[in-house]
Amino acid sequence: MYLGIDLGGTSIKAGIVNQEGEILLKDQAPTGVSDGLDQMIENICNLGRKLLSKAQEQHLLVEAVGLGVPGPVDQDGRVIKCVNLSWPVVPIAQILTDKFGIPVFAANDGNAAGMGEAEAGVLKGAESGIILTLGTGIGGGVILNGTCRVGYNGIGGEIGHMIVGENFYNCNCGRNGCLETFSSVTGLINYTKKLLLEGEGSSLIQRCTEVGEPLESGLSKLNGFMIVKEAQAGDALAQKAVDRVAYYLSIGITNLVSVLDPQIIAIGGGMSGAGDWFISKVRTYTEENRFFKDFPIPQIVNAKFSNDAGVIGAAMLAKAFLK
Amino acid sequence: MYLGIDLGGTSIKAGIVNQEGEILLKDQAPTGVSDGLDQMIENICNLGRKLLSKAQEQHLLVEAVGLGVPGPVDQDGRVIKCVNLSWPVVPIAQILTDKFGIPVFAANDGNAAGMGEAEAGVLKGAESGIILTLGTGIGGGVILNGTCRVGYNGIGGEIGHMIVGENFYNCNCGRNGCLETFSSVTGLINYTKKLLLEGEGSSLIQRCTEVGEPLESGLSKLNGFMIVKEAQAGDALAQKAVDRVAYYLSIGITNLVSVLDPQIIAIGGGMSGAGDWFISKVRTYTEENRFFKDFPIPQIVNAKFSNDAGVIGAAMLAKAFLK
Repeated sequence: MYLGIDLGGTSIKAGIVNQEGEILLKDQAPTGVSDGLDQMIENICNLGRKLLSKAQEQHLLVEAVGLGVPGPVDQDGRVIKCVNLSWPVVPIAQILTDKFGIPVFAANDGNAAGMGEAEAGVLKGAESGIILTLGTGIGGGVILNGTCRVGYNGIGGEIGHMIVGENFYNCNCGRNGCLETFSSVTGLINYTKKLLLEGEGSSLIQRCTEVGEPLESGLSKLNGFMIVKEAQAGDALAQKAVDRVAYYLSIGITNLVSVLDPQIIAIGGGMSGAGDWFISKVRTYTEENRFFKDFPIPQIVNAKFSNDAGVIGAAMLAKAFLK
Repeated sequence: MYLGIDLGGTSIKAGIVNQEGEILLKDQAPTGVSDGLDQMIENICNLGRKLLSKAQEQHLLVEAVGLGVPGPVDQDGRVIKCVNLSWPVVPIAQILTDKFGIPVFAANDGNAAGMGEAEAGVLKGAESGIILTLGTGIGGGVILNGTCRVGYNGIGGEIGHMIVGENFYNCNCGRNGCLETFSSVTGLINYTKKLLLEGEGSSLIQRCTEVGEPLESGLSKLNGFMIVKEAQAGDALAQKAVDRVAYYLSIGITNLVSVLDPQIIAIGGGMSGAGDWFISKVRTYTEENRFFKDFPIPQIVNAKFSNDAGVIGAAMLAKAFLK
């Protein structure tokens, strides 16, 4: 049994997770970024202790704790300057090990999601696999022979910042052409907005504006779910936008093949809510765009874990480290 | 002692190489692509036997043979459809093991070059490293914990076909934006030609055209060495062209950091003849273009082996496999 903690910019989610990646108990609390580092660590501890004590009441033996962090974490479990949390260098695994009295392992949340799939999901038993979580940004985790490639400085798996082309707006990181500006849910929304503002007709206009409301104002209500739904219903503009997400994702995938030639690509995050309809688009573009036409493309599948991927991934990280 | 064989589209180069990657004996022969598969295998065997018998005369004990192939090779040493040699699927390692009577190991030539650097060159002892050979195309090899990542289908390390932007001409592979269209010697020449044909002035014009010769005709004499030399002498057009090679190479390197976060990047091939002058440009652009500004970039260095990299790499491949 493991305590998995998913540390986000807004909330901390945690759960007691068994060997198979099933959550038996869960809870959450605000992260409290504005309260500063010490209070955030206190918030993590309080939530963790609450779950550990509940687990004890139910005679569930928790062996270790895993923590997923929204930023780079080195091989020793030290967070290295996490912008999302306003953290400097923090040896978080060591700090929490001292507080909890059981081993704590920390990793970047994308890497943790990869370990969740590797230990109990669609990457289990694979020679190699890469998870891409398409949400506000794009997270990633590279799994080779069952272990996560954290990287020499702890910044591996940041696949959202692989440059794959030229885009009409810059990435938050200041550069142009990052995969996440094309293929995250944010990228989908931004491109759809651009098309709508250029005057292309779409059923999305009625969906997001009230009678008499200017388009610019209505567009703030646009979300990924809405765009996918209209695309599936046949709206040409929404389809064009989703196709662009899938097209550039296929470029990212063929790039990963060129470097690592992985067995499986697992797609997680909000965008995976579009299901097999989206995955089959990604497969088609990847077939078309691959370099070696005589070689099969990697298996492209939806990740097993969706909503609780962060908590389960963190727990499976602990499981993997304990081996 | 190992027999290293570098199988190219034009010639087969081979050498008897010691543990330290030093060539003690060497020889070469035409590949004979037009004579067909069986004759090519005969040509490899004849050259190999010649060197093995010379080695025996000198009491050099050869333990194994390594072969570098200009195409994809799977983890079992089978060449999978090599376009450069017009080969179908050929279990070359097994065929040559039967012929030579000692173990033969085969790999893609980029991967072999990586193993050369890992066993006896600048990647020796590194946690991780990637070699990029900038020549007619761009070859690559990904070394993690001292072993080469061949890939699930044997097509890993094809880093020249990572898409990094949009280019004014398509890659031989039919796609647009492959790293090798920007940062190979061919990419350097193609871009320089484009600038010259657009009418930009340059000392290169005098260097490649005879008196009265039209520019188009003179441009066929343009080569990478000439462009680098004029750039180093201060010619603005040549500098712009070399800078573009370095700029896009830095995008490729930052992409590799985003995926794998390697400790070292080794630059080999013809372009590395430009020495530290070129490497320092690549470093500067990589510093500017990196994603995590607070993290160091990988060490970027010239590969140790240049002219004989193929033979030494193949031999070191055998050394690594025998371990």
